[in-house]
Amino acid sequence: MAEAESEVSRTRIMVAVNESSMKGYPHASISSEGAFQWTLEKIVHYNPNGFKILLLHVQFPPGDGFNEMNRVYTSPSDFQVMKNRNKARGLHLLEYFILRCHQFGVPCEAWIKRGDPKQVILFEARRVQPDILVLGCRGLRTFERIEFGSVSEFCRTHPECPTMVITRKDEDMPPNRVDD
Amino acid sequence: MAEAESEVSRTRIMVAVNESSMKGYPHASISSEGAFQWTLEKIVHYNPNGFKILLLHVQFPPGDGFNEMNRVYTSPSDFQVMKNRNKARGLHLLEYFILRCHQFGVPCEAWIKRGDPKQVILFEARRVQPDILVLGCRGLRTFERIEFGSVSEFCRTHPECPTMVITRKDEDMPPNRVDD
Repeated sequence: MAEAESEVSRTRIMVAVNESSMKGYPHASISSEGAFQWTLEKIVHYNPNGFKILLLHVQFPPGDGFNEMNRVYTSPSDFQVMKNRNKARGLHLLEYFILRCHQFGVPCEAWIKRGDPKQVILFEARRVQPDILVLGCRGLRTFERIEFGSVSEFCRTHPECPTMVITRKDEDMPPNRVDD
Repeated sequence: MAEAESEVSRTRIMVAVNESSMKGYPHASISSEGAFQWTLEKIVHYNPNGFKILLLHVQFPPGDGFNEMNRVYTSPSDFQVMKNRNKARGLHLLEYFILRCHQFGVPCEAWIKRGDPKQVILFEARRVQPDILVLGCRGLRTFERIEFGSVSEFCRTHPECPTMVITRKDEDMPPNRVDD
């Protein structure tokens, strides 16, 4: 009963994480690493038992990644292999963040979903009903956002719950701002 | 020195508060009351020493309020009297929130500025550099927002720092949604 009560009074923070576009799995993107770190430092702070971190990683469906561009597909099982491989890679990414949560002493949960990140993050926020949704942001300029899209911008303008967007620091900006 | 260090490590949350459009001073608006309460419950939580609340109240310049519509002005001092009266009313509003912070045990600071709330909130966020800016929101529909304006919408789309918008609960919605 005490456990159930403390679960209820914890503030549930959902953090969307994704892989680095430069280094690939299991490395986290600069923006999601920054958003996660910011959440631990600025909100969870010295009170890890007051919070629960919900880590969501959304994978594009197979075939959307550039890694698959030169591949020749011969049977349906090719897609299955790819799907399983991607899932395993995604689990390594989550393992990294879960380890960080454990080191910090904050309870966590993590899961993978497949689909368009914008839609899936909003769908999961509606389903899970976190108290806060935290998203990293590359800090693209207006024209870059229009050309390359911005998940955080979309989720900020269609909020399912209080949403906080953490923009990459200037010193963390890669040479190509679209990278992450 | 210990005091200075603990000051540095506190997460500084700026909350913009305003008066009720229905009851006037010293009553807080539904949305700013909700945003303030949400901040205490969901972020400050059981760790009041980890945070500092910065309360900003922005007043419109005299003459913008409906209360002044039927007044006849005869000398410059009329405006001065009004300005002072408004400031005193604003102080009562801040007194209410400061009392709440003290009851909760969280350190706070509060101040009043005059001008267009949208611009002043962003200017103050740029000047004070809080870790988080929390704003209440009436939850107006698109056309209502266009007609009556939305401070939180403006600040969310021109963020100076991580900004969190807390929308009024359905059960707190007044008969006229534009009221607050």
